[in-house]
Amino acid sequence: MPSSTDLVHAVSADLEKIREAAPLVLSLTNSVVQPLTANLLLAAGAVPAMLNDAEEAVEMLRGGAGALLVNLGTVTREQGAVMQTAVQEANRLGIPWVLDPVAVGALSLRTRLAEQLKERRPRIIRGNASEIMALAGYSSVTKGPESTSSSADALQAARELALHTGAAVLVTGRTDYSTDGRQVIATENGHAMMSRVTGVGCSMGALAAACAAVSSSPLQAAVSTAVLMGIAGEMAFEQSPAPGSFAVSLLDSLYSLSPEEVARRARILPL
Amino acid sequence: MPSSTDLVHAVSADLEKIREAAPLVLSLTNSVVQPLTANLLLAAGAVPAMLNDAEEAVEMLRGGAGALLVNLGTVTREQGAVMQTAVQEANRLGIPWVLDPVAVGALSLRTRLAEQLKERRPRIIRGNASEIMALAGYSSVTKGPESTSSSADALQAARELALHTGAAVLVTGRTDYSTDGRQVIATENGHAMMSRVTGVGCSMGALAAACAAVSSSPLQAAVSTAVLMGIAGEMAFEQSPAPGSFAVSLLDSLYSLSPEEVARRARILPL
Amino acid sequence: MPSSTDLVHAVSADLEKIREAAPLVLSLTNSVVQPLTANLLLAAGAVPAMLNDAEEAVEMLRGGAGALLVNLGTVTREQGAVMQTAVQEANRLGIPWVLDPVAVGALSLRTRLAEQLKERRPRIIRGNASEIMALAGYSSVTKGPESTSSSADALQAARELALHTGAAVLVTGRTDYSTDGRQVIATENGHAMMSRVTGVGCSMGALAAACAAVSSSPLQAAVSTAVLMGIAGEMAFEQSPAPGSFAVSLLDSLYSLSPEEVARRARILPL
Repeated sequence: MPSSTDLVHAVSADLEKIREAAPLVLSLTNSVVQPLTANLLLAAGAVPAMLNDAEEAVEMLRGGAGALLVNLGTVTREQGAVMQTAVQEANRLGIPWVLDPVAVGALSLRTRLAEQLKERRPRIIRGNASEIMALAGYSSVTKGPESTSSSADALQAARELALHTGAAVLVTGRTDYSTDGRQVIATENGHAMMSRVTGVGCSMGALAAACAAVSSSPLQAAVSTAVLMGIAGEMAFEQSPAPGSFAVSLLDSLYSLSPEEVARRARILPL
Repeated sequence: MPSSTDLVHAVSADLEKIREAAPLVLSLTNSVVQPLTANLLLAAGAVPAMLNDAEEAVEMLRGGAGALLVNLGTVTREQGAVMQTAVQEANRLGIPWVLDPVAVGALSLRTRLAEQLKERRPRIIRGNASEIMALAGYSSVTKGPESTSSSADALQAARELALHTGAAVLVTGRTDYSTDGRQVIATENGHAMMSRVTGVGCSMGALAAACAAVSSSPLQAAVSTAVLMGIAGEMAFEQSPAPGSFAVSLLDSLYSLSPEEVARRARILPL
Repeated sequence: MPSSTDLVHAVSADLEKIREAAPLVLSLTNSVVQPLTANLLLAAGAVPAMLNDAEEAVEMLRGGAGALLVNLGTVTREQGAVMQTAVQEANRLGIPWVLDPVAVGALSLRTRLAEQLKERRPRIIRGNASEIMALAGYSSVTKGPESTSSSADALQAARELALHTGAAVLVTGRTDYSTDGRQVIATENGHAMMSRVTGVGCSMGALAAACAAVSSSPLQAAVSTAVLMGIAGEMAFEQSPAPGSFAVSLLDSLYSLSPEEVARRARILPL
């Protein structure tokens, strides 16, 4: 099992690799968060691409995409079909893909879709406690896109979901948990203000895809995502303690984040 | 008839209730303004939810939504059908809903849709002068999403529309007018810079829905919306007199708004 | 051939005319960049309108639109049909329209659509080097929405495309080139940070439409677009050297831009 120090070094290495490789992340994501998601990927050093057509999704993946994000936030039947095609092609090409099952459990269309997609070898699944519990087959209560359970409540569900799917599962909350079903790594970076800006959680899914494109393992990619986003959130709040300016500072902080800052702030606890 | 002082207290009370109850506002709104709308609801203390599927809209309403927003800004035939279903379910459940008839009068698809929806008991209708006049059956001239009439021009139309529909009507402009058809309340908070940021008007519709979820009456909810947004706009302009930073400060101001500031700045004139 | 000094004066005149005339720019553009595009048009002094329905597009054009933008960034078959209808009506009415062929060459649906649209008399075509080369029939390599060629590589393609279509072609990059096929004008305003914010390039297409509504010629409109956006980018970077705050400052800078600043900073080189 890696030490906390090894894990911190690996987080910095992932950020460095994103900045060097500038992986193209095809992001099939909900309309509310598209601007923030694209800007967050750019701030991290990745290249976002978004589109709505199945044929074009296949072409974009073949043209050199490093990762695929599938976020179900405002999905329609038509977009669900595009996602299915994209996932099939990503798997054929060996491109890692991330599933972000927004509000799954509460809403039928996306729950049916997520049930299918989770069987198709996502490399990472990112969700809040309610979403992860629902996707693992636990009953849970959701209030719109917000979780009503704590991330610790979802830990057992996350492990089972990871073992069932082969994905690393990242449960985000006050403490974030990353697990491949065997190891569990808790990370405690972040700030409550992140939940007062729309799309921060969804952007973590996109960052997870960027990390998956370069990282040594899906589990490390999940840890790197939680720590990088969390540190950027902490730094942003120190600059800007209200939500409008916080969102601006979040992008600035991620863009400017140094390995020294990562080393100084990362709170990683292998369990 | 309530005094100005009573009305000011009720505005602060509505803000406090939003922050305590955190009502879920299902926002079926146009793609241009989705990020600002969601962020404004979060800044006010509400919880935004957005989606594109009729079945999911019904489920979200049944799952505890406090209010529904229907904004026609970039509507398609498909989204119109989702809106019709959502309005029917909101009425069945007694959930208040707000109609924001963006650019109605000038454009056929949304005008036909708004004509149907206005008969289905919206709790609040929010629009600029041109939109309210068009929806009330007056002829008017619109330049895209901008009104070419003043809000005072629309006052008679607003009263008639309120009496016909049973809704409180909020006509936004340099002076905002709220009316239930009998009472008219003028409010004079706000700043011209609000019209230089896309989605501020549409976000007022969303804030009206949040207010409708907690307020003592639709008329009070309309007044609270106009005053809270207007004060946030005034404070934002004092911090940030250019439109990019103004939009950021608008969210910060609403998030930080205190009852003292409301009492100090509110300009409410029962007519 | 106009001198650099004449061209600089014409840039300032175009900005002044946008602020006075406030042209309505119907922007059929991709969902990722809609908020920034609308806000950038507002910051420049224009009035944005966005919609998704063919009948409404025709009505909006007839109702007094000054220009039309067609941006293919997240196009679907349905939106492609709306665009075709809008272009036909714009041509019938003599309203200038701008084609922004995002990622054309790499992706089939939009490439087929762009091949058709380029034959329908766009007044301006704006793209990066890869997009312009692809649209002119050169083979090129694209990495998602990013160009892998320099704008100078695309100069011959741009001239041919301009002569074939009758449009002014604006190739954006480190140096921007504007050409009507005979004259070529290089402009060297801007900053690399502009490529770290999603939608800045797409917003240039919208600004080009606003300029086309008021300018003396399509070629001048292209030059004005490149210079105004480039100067706003330079000023923004001086205020805000990280991408979140840079995007905010970009809008502020364009809003506040004075003729003196244009005269002081414009770098225009007729070739």
